[in-house]
Amino acid sequence: MIKPHPVVALLTDFGLQDGYVGIMKGAILKINPSVQIVDLCHSAEPYDIFGAAYILSSAYRYFPSGTVHVAVVDPGVGSSRRIICLKTKDYIFLAPDNGILSLIAAHDNPEVITEVTNNEYFLPEISNTFHGRDIFAPVAAHLANGISALEFGKKISRIREIEIPVPVLSSNSVLTAEVIYIDRFGNIVTNIDSSVLEKIKFTANGKYADKINTIRGRFSIVIANRKIERISKSYSEVKNGELAALFGSSGYLEIAANKDSAKELLNVRKGDKIVVCTKKNR
Amino acid sequence: MIKPHPVVALLTDFGLQDGYVGIMKGAILKINPSVQIVDLCHSAEPYDIFGAAYILSSAYRYFPSGTVHVAVVDPGVGSSRRIICLKTKDYIFLAPDNGILSLIAAHDNPEVITEVTNNEYFLPEISNTFHGRDIFAPVAAHLANGISALEFGKKISRIREIEIPVPVLSSNSVLTAEVIYIDRFGNIVTNIDSSVLEKIKFTANGKYADKINTIRGRFSIVIANRKIERISKSYSEVKNGELAALFGSSGYLEIAANKDSAKELLNVRKGDKIVVCTKKNR
Amino acid sequence: MIKPHPVVALLTDFGLQDGYVGIMKGAILKINPSVQIVDLCHSAEPYDIFGAAYILSSAYRYFPSGTVHVAVVDPGVGSSRRIICLKTKDYIFLAPDNGILSLIAAHDNPEVITEVTNNEYFLPEISNTFHGRDIFAPVAAHLANGISALEFGKKISRIREIEIPVPVLSSNSVLTAEVIYIDRFGNIVTNIDSSVLEKIKFTANGKYADKINTIRGRFSIVIANRKIERISKSYSEVKNGELAALFGSSGYLEIAANKDSAKELLNVRKGDKIVVCTKKNR
Repeated sequence: MIKPHPVVALLTDFGLQDGYVGIMKGAILKINPSVQIVDLCHSAEPYDIFGAAYILSSAYRYFPSGTVHVAVVDPGVGSSRRIICLKTKDYIFLAPDNGILSLIAAHDNPEVITEVTNNEYFLPEISNTFHGRDIFAPVAAHLANGISALEFGKKISRIREIEIPVPVLSSNSVLTAEVIYIDRFGNIVTNIDSSVLEKIKFTANGKYADKINTIRGRFSIVIANRKIERISKSYSEVKNGELAALFGSSGYLEIAANKDSAKELLNVRKGDKIVVCTKKNR
Repeated sequence: MIKPHPVVALLTDFGLQDGYVGIMKGAILKINPSVQIVDLCHSAEPYDIFGAAYILSSAYRYFPSGTVHVAVVDPGVGSSRRIICLKTKDYIFLAPDNGILSLIAAHDNPEVITEVTNNEYFLPEISNTFHGRDIFAPVAAHLANGISALEFGKKISRIREIEIPVPVLSSNSVLTAEVIYIDRFGNIVTNIDSSVLEKIKFTANGKYADKINTIRGRFSIVIANRKIERISKSYSEVKNGELAALFGSSGYLEIAANKDSAKELLNVRKGDKIVVCTKKNR
Repeated sequence: MIKPHPVVALLTDFGLQDGYVGIMKGAILKINPSVQIVDLCHSAEPYDIFGAAYILSSAYRYFPSGTVHVAVVDPGVGSSRRIICLKTKDYIFLAPDNGILSLIAAHDNPEVITEVTNNEYFLPEISNTFHGRDIFAPVAAHLANGISALEFGKKISRIREIEIPVPVLSSNSVLTAEVIYIDRFGNIVTNIDSSVLEKIKFTANGKYADKINTIRGRFSIVIANRKIERISKSYSEVKNGELAALFGSSGYLEIAANKDSAKELLNVRKGDKIVVCTKKNR
């Protein structure tokens, strides 16, 4: 399917201080001048595969159908790690096979996965340090041109998975989860989605809460020795500078501070624990 | 009016370290794949409405006629603050009603202002923390498609205004003004435009100076206990590392240092005072 | 030659914290709405002409033929420095005449160079501090429209050159070179390309090494009092955190650390020395 303005979205850990991202864009447009290139993010932490996987999984479905999502967080560049192309119903993903597509594969349905090896579609000279320019950019341009994933190499059935941190629910209805991401505003994203909270609810009271609204007051949350007594709907439900727990835009429970940085208030980092309990005396 | 490549310009405080800006772009292109998206700036200081208003007002008129300017510095996201669409002769502005359009409304002529409430044009699910994705992006895409501002909600006659700092001219021809912006080079932008200086001139000598050139040597400027004895035309009129006062690209008096950072030399911040006097003995 | 989506690539030291880059893009699109604007880099160090020249020279040839490369690192803005347009077989360069095109002129073949003076193509009002907006952006838009370089001013035969640091080979086959760039990952780029190493080889053994592979083990490299005993092919040839010397994506010898920052490990800066010797006892 060739589109008038196919979209290629780029996620890298290249940052913007060098010319690397610009060079990738030049290399894409050299092959396919009608591509719309969108920067998803170039500030993924170097070598942080899970962080990049999170950004990608929270973003990809907001892009036009047919978007080619290119994810180059690639500490193994130049080694024998594979490059893979994963096609779902609506999107095409191109990435090193280092686990960065784990969350996509877990949440969406891969229709085809191929190992990208056909160097007819690469630049003529391949460096060992910048496959973003020499392989990912030209392959993405050709994918956006409508070339099938199958053209780039043989089908494979499994991709490399990274461990996805999962909240643990103990028998006494205490949920132990962790911080998976912290954004520019200091909002602290946890790995607790609403289905997890419904599970606690079930364990605690024997029935599902059908709307998250009805359960907002039934939990207390502990993080960095601070207790938050309810789940808010928006930042503005608490006073300026106060902590709120709320379901953020990616569907996960976030700890935020109204017009302030929860990260700085709590001094937490990725991987830190957060505990959710049902309230005792109701 | 549908254009072949309508422009949507984005001004946010989202930064580039997360995927938020990229997600907004995806959401725009999903609705309107022919839009040209331009990043005006994503480094507005979080919650700094006036700073963002200044960036927008100094930039918007350099964009093509018909540009949809989207400004999302929105500490009240998820609260009852309104979202507004303001149309001038040449541009369309979409923003939270928190004062960010104050300078536009003051300098340009709003033809229509509407409150954006028609959720037919929003994403199906609206989060309480990311209206940039769920409301601003799709509405901007529809505006760029030529949908009239009136389609998005009812007309309103007033928008929220923020206080705009204005220089004060005392009876003895001393002008007290303030620092409103400091840029990446450490150039210090004040709220003094040339019309203000002409006013001093008038007060001091009883007639208008018709050209700024003729008045450049007639003022001295005091900031952070340093005196600058004239208004320069360009950075290169002073030696490297020396301070210059000059009218910058946005029309305001700036304090700069040739090939150096005036901000660091003077250690000033937004809101700091600056005083302009006519020279005593000429 | 008018292209359907001509590319204008921007290299500046404006950073992204202000609206300057966005304003340039608006000004380009106002004249030529079909341009594809690509950010090569906006994080060139303020006033660092050589650094910007390096980024440009390592990037330009990956862009589509016909790309207009605009380079605005311009500490002399508003002074009498010239603005030049340099056309090679495949690309057009627009820049202040301050040496930023030195490496282009040295590595490529300028077909035409003109001094840009024709203010019919500038914005009506020219500030003395923001020629990016008032001159470079509109001229770039017209160049992308297919207007000939000759339309913008008279031909010139020489451009200003900056000193390009060149490695020095002493009689005892010791090569003294220097650090010319350090990237976001802490990779340290030197001014040693493979032709230089072949020269050492020649001096040392009386014949050229025909493939870089064959000479990889024959050199040792000293930087910041640390010795590296061979030239690697990829980061992954050394253990995590260990130093590697390898030819990077721009063709120069780089000092890197696998999944770590060589810059931080070695605490080196631009201009620091690096020494390459042939191994004594083989």
